[in-house]
Amino acid sequence: MGADSTTFYPLLPALHSHPPYLKILDQTKLPGKISYRRIKDYRGLIKAIRELQIRGAPLIGVAAAYGVALEAVKTKRDLKKRLSQVIKELKNARPTGFNLFWTLKRMEGIFSLQLPERELRTRIVEEAVRIDWEEKERCERIGRHGAKLLEDGAKVLTICNTGILATPGIGTALGVIYKAKEEGKDITVFVCETRPLLQGARLTAWELKRKGIKTYLITDNMVGRVMKEIDIVLTGADRIAKNFDFANKIGTLTLAICARYYKKPFYCVAPTSTIDFSLRDGREIIVEERKEEEVLTCQGKPIAPKGVKVFNPAFDVTPHNLLTGIITDKGIIKLDRRTHPLL
Amino acid sequence: MGADSTTFYPLLPALHSHPPYLKILDQTKLPGKISYRRIKDYRGLIKAIRELQIRGAPLIGVAAAYGVALEAVKTKRDLKKRLSQVIKELKNARPTGFNLFWTLKRMEGIFSLQLPERELRTRIVEEAVRIDWEEKERCERIGRHGAKLLEDGAKVLTICNTGILATPGIGTALGVIYKAKEEGKDITVFVCETRPLLQGARLTAWELKRKGIKTYLITDNMVGRVMKEIDIVLTGADRIAKNFDFANKIGTLTLAICARYYKKPFYCVAPTSTIDFSLRDGREIIVEERKEEEVLTCQGKPIAPKGVKVFNPAFDVTPHNLLTGIITDKGIIKLDRRTHPLL
Repeated sequence: MGADSTTFYPLLPALHSHPPYLKILDQTKLPGKISYRRIKDYRGLIKAIRELQIRGAPLIGVAAAYGVALEAVKTKRDLKKRLSQVIKELKNARPTGFNLFWTLKRMEGIFSLQLPERELRTRIVEEAVRIDWEEKERCERIGRHGAKLLEDGAKVLTICNTGILATPGIGTALGVIYKAKEEGKDITVFVCETRPLLQGARLTAWELKRKGIKTYLITDNMVGRVMKEIDIVLTGADRIAKNFDFANKIGTLTLAICARYYKKPFYCVAPTSTIDFSLRDGREIIVEERKEEEVLTCQGKPIAPKGVKVFNPAFDVTPHNLLTGIITDKGIIKLDRRTHPLL
Repeated sequence: MGADSTTFYPLLPALHSHPPYLKILDQTKLPGKISYRRIKDYRGLIKAIRELQIRGAPLIGVAAAYGVALEAVKTKRDLKKRLSQVIKELKNARPTGFNLFWTLKRMEGIFSLQLPERELRTRIVEEAVRIDWEEKERCERIGRHGAKLLEDGAKVLTICNTGILATPGIGTALGVIYKAKEEGKDITVFVCETRPLLQGARLTAWELKRKGIKTYLITDNMVGRVMKEIDIVLTGADRIAKNFDFANKIGTLTLAICARYYKKPFYCVAPTSTIDFSLRDGREIIVEERKEEEVLTCQGKPIAPKGVKVFNPAFDVTPHNLLTGIITDKGIIKLDRRTHPLL
């Protein structure tokens, strides 16, 4: 594991650890502006996560681990007490993506060790770096497994952003596309713009264009029409329950329903760090509801009459029976044939 | 037929005939600004139709009839020759909505009569007015028929704008809602914002709010999620083929697929003037492809990297087998039980 075993796409890293600060690419400014920001403490990190300057379940997880490490470096005494508080607050940054909780649990595992503070500090920093590199490596493996599913000439439909901007590596769903392209396959990607915050239009179209991949941007309501032309649907995941129901960006469920209607394969793509084995099924996933302004505006500009009520869940939950399979770093989980007419 | 037999909702008329000009409410400025424009000739009308200042299949049809009348009033000689040219050009304004072609055919029917020019001129103006009033009356009848399908407390999902701004009357799908409300029923409407041009957010939310109807604005990708909570889906139609396949705003097909998945009733609502009996099925409907900028921007603001390709059909075609029925001015057409599990 480590840098040597992986092929990176140093498009523009979304996150650097530069103690005593983190450097993040402010994704709210893309594609208009490439703007890096310094994050000096965990409170600044929480704010950046909530405002989606840094986003994508795997990347948020890694950022949080670095956030803990940053505080460890800065804390001169009562390290455990301080870090307990930091972790508690970081857990409240956003509720749905599981990787945040998974990495923070790993960090907790370290500082519960009975070690002198000085050694503990080193171990905490090492653990954050390890998580980062492991997640990069997971992206690589996901890409290699998933690329087998894409034939030369494949037309892929995707939503939101699941690439270099959403993970510390090459991405999940987009990572699969990058690997297939690297293998010499000709891939065309249809990208849902992904309202309200347009991660598809702003981030995914930008990544794919920079990588020289054929891209068509579509509005989210074109899914029913475009699905006819598609070979495969690939989406990310923010949290996967034990039965493989999964939460992902709002719109994913609509894609899954349309894929089923046209009998097209639908895969969710995620590192195993996204699977929450404590949840029986998707009904137990907490879906973040975000502020009304996101729907009432587009890129900050009002689009609707004042005072209109909105519904704004950031995610929806797709039942496992709409999934053809899950592409993970440990291989592809194909779902039970008896409930899956596509398999 | 006529004003006395109908109940109007003079919210703000979208179109007035004020010879020697037409007055239109510029819908591209809503909801921010209520701005009326004078249209002085048919070329100005074509431009206004293409730029969606005036829109909605039934309203475009009526506007075109008035456009012909306007030219008839202004033309001092060679009336038939002039109007043939005017009609030919008006037919090229937009290709998909059928009402435009239907009203222009009626206008052609008049000026093919063997009458002195002076009388012909009068008959042409009368015919435009008649079409306007008939279409208003059709909206009323549609509303009365459709309202029977809405129970007290009903939650309705709709897309685009099908109300006072889309017809010369109370609307089609929205007209049904207005009638149900008038009957004292408590109705909640979920409105798809309807990218790229946001007719749902800008126009429908605005109409419903002014009418005091409970409204939730949603992004188009929420359809798969929101459909669970919905009692009935009502959409408009731009052109209906003989077998009841129909073209409507892009996104309608996605709604229909999601409605079928959750076994929710899905009705298209349109005057009989939208039915094109010359078309065997939906494959024969010409779908207008609009310019890339619409998808690459939102309210004029760029949302994606420059040079990204887009797909921008203004409509999609929903196959009749996804329809529960069609609500028309002549009653509700329920579709064949054998192909319709919902009936």
